[in-house]
Amino acid sequence: MQLPRLTRYLPILDWARRYDRDTATSDLVAAVIVTIMLIPQSLAYALLAGLPAEMGLYASILPLVAYAIFGTSRALAVGPVAVVSLMTAAAIGQLGLSDPAQIALAAVTLAFISGVFLVAIGVLRLGFLANFLSHPVISGFITASGVLIAASQLKHIFGISAEGHTLVDLVASLIAHLPETNVITLAIGVAATAFLFWVRKGLKPLLRNMGLGPRMADILAKAGPVAAVAVTTLLTWGLGLNDMGVKVVGEVPMGLPPFSAPSFDLSMWKTLLMPAILISIIGFVESVSVAQTLAAKRRQRIDPDQELIGLGASNIGSALSGGFPVTGGFSRSVVNFDAGAETPAAGAYTAVGIGLATLVLTPLLFFLPKATLAATIIVAVLSLVDFSILKKTWTYSKVDFTAVSATIVLTLLVGVEVGVSAGVLLSILLHLYKTSKPHVAEVGLVPGTHHFRNVLRHDVETLPGVLTLRVDESLYFVNARFLEEYVLTRVAECQNLRHVVLMFPAVNEVDMSALETLEEINRRLEEQGITLHLTEVKGPVMDRLKRSHFLHELSGQVFLSQYEAFCALKADAPLGAEQESLAAQ
Amino acid sequence: MQLPRLTRYLPILDWARRYDRDTATSDLVAAVIVTIMLIPQSLAYALLAGLPAEMGLYASILPLVAYAIFGTSRALAVGPVAVVSLMTAAAIGQLGLSDPAQIALAAVTLAFISGVFLVAIGVLRLGFLANFLSHPVISGFITASGVLIAASQLKHIFGISAEGHTLVDLVASLIAHLPETNVITLAIGVAATAFLFWVRKGLKPLLRNMGLGPRMADILAKAGPVAAVAVTTLLTWGLGLNDMGVKVVGEVPMGLPPFSAPSFDLSMWKTLLMPAILISIIGFVESVSVAQTLAAKRRQRIDPDQELIGLGASNIGSALSGGFPVTGGFSRSVVNFDAGAETPAAGAYTAVGIGLATLVLTPLLFFLPKATLAATIIVAVLSLVDFSILKKTWTYSKVDFTAVSATIVLTLLVGVEVGVSAGVLLSILLHLYKTSKPHVAEVGLVPGTHHFRNVLRHDVETLPGVLTLRVDESLYFVNARFLEEYVLTRVAECQNLRHVVLMFPAVNEVDMSALETLEEINRRLEEQGITLHLTEVKGPVMDRLKRSHFLHELSGQVFLSQYEAFCALKADAPLGAEQESLAAQ
Repeated sequence: MQLPRLTRYLPILDWARRYDRDTATSDLVAAVIVTIMLIPQSLAYALLAGLPAEMGLYASILPLVAYAIFGTSRALAVGPVAVVSLMTAAAIGQLGLSDPAQIALAAVTLAFISGVFLVAIGVLRLGFLANFLSHPVISGFITASGVLIAASQLKHIFGISAEGHTLVDLVASLIAHLPETNVITLAIGVAATAFLFWVRKGLKPLLRNMGLGPRMADILAKAGPVAAVAVTTLLTWGLGLNDMGVKVVGEVPMGLPPFSAPSFDLSMWKTLLMPAILISIIGFVESVSVAQTLAAKRRQRIDPDQELIGLGASNIGSALSGGFPVTGGFSRSVVNFDAGAETPAAGAYTAVGIGLATLVLTPLLFFLPKATLAATIIVAVLSLVDFSILKKTWTYSKVDFTAVSATIVLTLLVGVEVGVSAGVLLSILLHLYKTSKPHVAEVGLVPGTHHFRNVLRHDVETLPGVLTLRVDESLYFVNARFLEEYVLTRVAECQNLRHVVLMFPAVNEVDMSALETLEEINRRLEEQGITLHLTEVKGPVMDRLKRSHFLHELSGQVFLSQYEAFCALKADAPLGAEQESLAAQ
Repeated sequence: MQLPRLTRYLPILDWARRYDRDTATSDLVAAVIVTIMLIPQSLAYALLAGLPAEMGLYASILPLVAYAIFGTSRALAVGPVAVVSLMTAAAIGQLGLSDPAQIALAAVTLAFISGVFLVAIGVLRLGFLANFLSHPVISGFITASGVLIAASQLKHIFGISAEGHTLVDLVASLIAHLPETNVITLAIGVAATAFLFWVRKGLKPLLRNMGLGPRMADILAKAGPVAAVAVTTLLTWGLGLNDMGVKVVGEVPMGLPPFSAPSFDLSMWKTLLMPAILISIIGFVESVSVAQTLAAKRRQRIDPDQELIGLGASNIGSALSGGFPVTGGFSRSVVNFDAGAETPAAGAYTAVGIGLATLVLTPLLFFLPKATLAATIIVAVLSLVDFSILKKTWTYSKVDFTAVSATIVLTLLVGVEVGVSAGVLLSILLHLYKTSKPHVAEVGLVPGTHHFRNVLRHDVETLPGVLTLRVDESLYFVNARFLEEYVLTRVAECQNLRHVVLMFPAVNEVDMSALETLEEINRRLEEQGITLHLTEVKGPVMDRLKRSHFLHELSGQVFLSQYEAFCALKADAPLGAEQESLAAQ
């Protein structure tokens, strides 16, 4: 009986038993393609994170093996990704370090904290916390991050130095250093960017016209960065461009990643804790949505809580082998999927490929211009930039629009951490605000049916002396006071009222505060000689109300359906009319 | 047309025009009674706040006048109150000051920040923010504060010194200093406490037996503290007890309050800002609930946003006249109401009474034992202590129980600010958590009716090939992912499914994230050849959906009622059965 639990935490036990030669072949083919794609990406994202190039390679070995053991997605390709690398740069920037060894240590520590946090919330099954990031906030954040990343890479294209973690700082710094532009670097940068854009837009149709299948054309087009890297490296080496001011990657240590350990310096942890949590959540949300999309295409399922553990293990792996925070990448996973990866073993094979690269390829990277890497980043992230979310939310919901525009503006102008935190807080507060003044409709009977509809929207029948209100929101502490105020105000406006009916088909909860409010409304109405009834109370809400004294104190009845209440109060009506005329005398 | 806006901000313009001699008489009588009650209270609460006694009197003059001008409640009696005084002591304690002038300045500054904050949220009409404090959290907080306050006063009863802002610190400090107990002080303290308890429990029935009306008996019983103060002061003076170690109030400066100004020291503001906000909100919530209860008894209304301005003006008034944070007090307002106060002018007359006291009575206060004041505080706050909220919430809702018990435990063991903040955060998080996994019921037709009920709770009719799910929660970012997961899991379990019907009578909102989820569900089901329908979509939700592309993409229809959908899909069923049998061949 231990087995099912073990396979939950070690999904590898599930798929490895059924692993055969055919699957291995598919996985190997996918791994070769992903390896070719991952080499320039991993170098580029290390650059983006402000780290030495080899750390990108290191972050693409052990983390992939760890994910293969603990992850549940069959196609997710883990490693350094753009947004997380940007957040890593911002987090490490807060420490104000200048010693490269200390910066590397901070990156390793960040990966470690993030890994421990992810494993912890995975084991505690708190994966739902990621839901606090609404779709529009995520879209806005990724769009703004894409703009920031592209802006941060322009310095490499121009061959100048520029600093800053906000758009204003970056642009100001770029403009100030523009006179120092290195023309050869600029030429390489612009050419590489143009080439990569063409590969993305123009090469695929060309290959298809040449008779290649759509999948093969797609995969070949994804290899564009490798071509750009090879050509510009050869050019730089052949023409000695690095002596003319073209900045290159330079010496990359040869060999497998070293064993590394995080720092346990308390003040470093204090600064890195919040960034690590944000990196974890953003990384998880991005990764899990890719994994879900791909799993759905093959009618597979992923387990979000186990995904947390898988990504956590990857990050701990990264921390132990000189890497930095990693997560599942979008384009890379799609390539892996399209190339036919069938199990997480493909990731392990990719790790072997990158491992070989560290043993063999590193000397060749010496002449690789940084401008080429910057070009690959710019082209990759600009595909993430999509401001249409602003238009969509503007049309659909001003609340979502507010959250997404705050996220974009604050991410660009203040920083990634403030941007995404503000987006989350604002979404929650605006949601609570919306529910704080619920929609309440006076309803009447649609003649000839059993249906009740808003008296303002439909031509309906109401009873004299009876006020029927449909409450369109769960009742809880945030709106409890509003309901009391609303009902009593409505009652004060009516003459000769004898019954108030609250219709609860849309009330999914009545918490303690709301219960006390209902008791208060009942008491106040009773003082005025008005009877309070409830109708269409949902099962779970009724179960709970039965545990309180409210149903004993209630001056009226609880009717199963509004129509029953209508008939019962209608039967009572003639007496009401009599009383009314008596009262008028 | 300026007038209605002016009376909104200056309610005095409304009632003062109709002010006549009869009203004035009622107000005057109430003011005399409240003044007598307020003198010992204001001294005692200054002591509780760790401030010189005269500051209590100062906080009971200008604030009352300011409230009379800006407040909307006819009966609220403003001044120092127990819980806010405790929070004031805790806030000032954080500054670690020892110079009495600096401590007084901090108190004045705290009142000023609190006043400005209250006016600001009043003008911005953000009064609904107070709703984030749920009823159970407020009850728990007040109960825990009562225990803390009583514990903090024990040192005066024993005549020893003891420090601490948490229960553990207070008790430990009390035990450590117990050997220094002053027996005469203890005798006075115990006697005063016993007397005041008797006044509360025994005197009222006695007076009623003697033929007094219930209202008069109540008011006389409330004057008990004055008697205790008079008797113990006389005893101390007559027997020279202050020379035997009985601590007395000592020299109280004679004369009206001095003009004072808050400090604008940035580091002090930084420390006091959060406490001031918490004090404001707690003070407002307490005050507004008393005001609402009393207003309801006379069928009057108060305006919560204007109440914020009234209380804000009071606190600014307190800051300008050497006082400390004030709010509307519970027992004092009830006395004011019972004594017949008809307009806020009663408060202004009370201010005149306290003003006279500062001119005449202060020399008499020299011999007033601190133990007597401590006794009045203890007896007053123990009536606030009510742990029954724990039992009530335990029976009714575990979520509320969690929030209230966390509030109580953290208030007692960590402090007032942490306690109440944790209560608010926990209530919000638990509410969001509850809505993150909404109740979804498969429903069927109750035979012979048009009603649909849960298939697990009722004996109902369902159609083959049709899955009807009623979603019992608004759909928004926190539960959007859950719905997708749930629907697709349910669909995967069903064989030969052709229609999925989502019934939305309890869906009060579909935000952008949920819209994207619905689009995704529609797409996935379409891939599987399953049609998606919606029924009973509420007006506001439908209005919004019409602004998106979803209704064009939807593979099925939107039915006004579930019964219509049932009939339409039933008509379609024979074909379905045919297909099913074909598929089985």
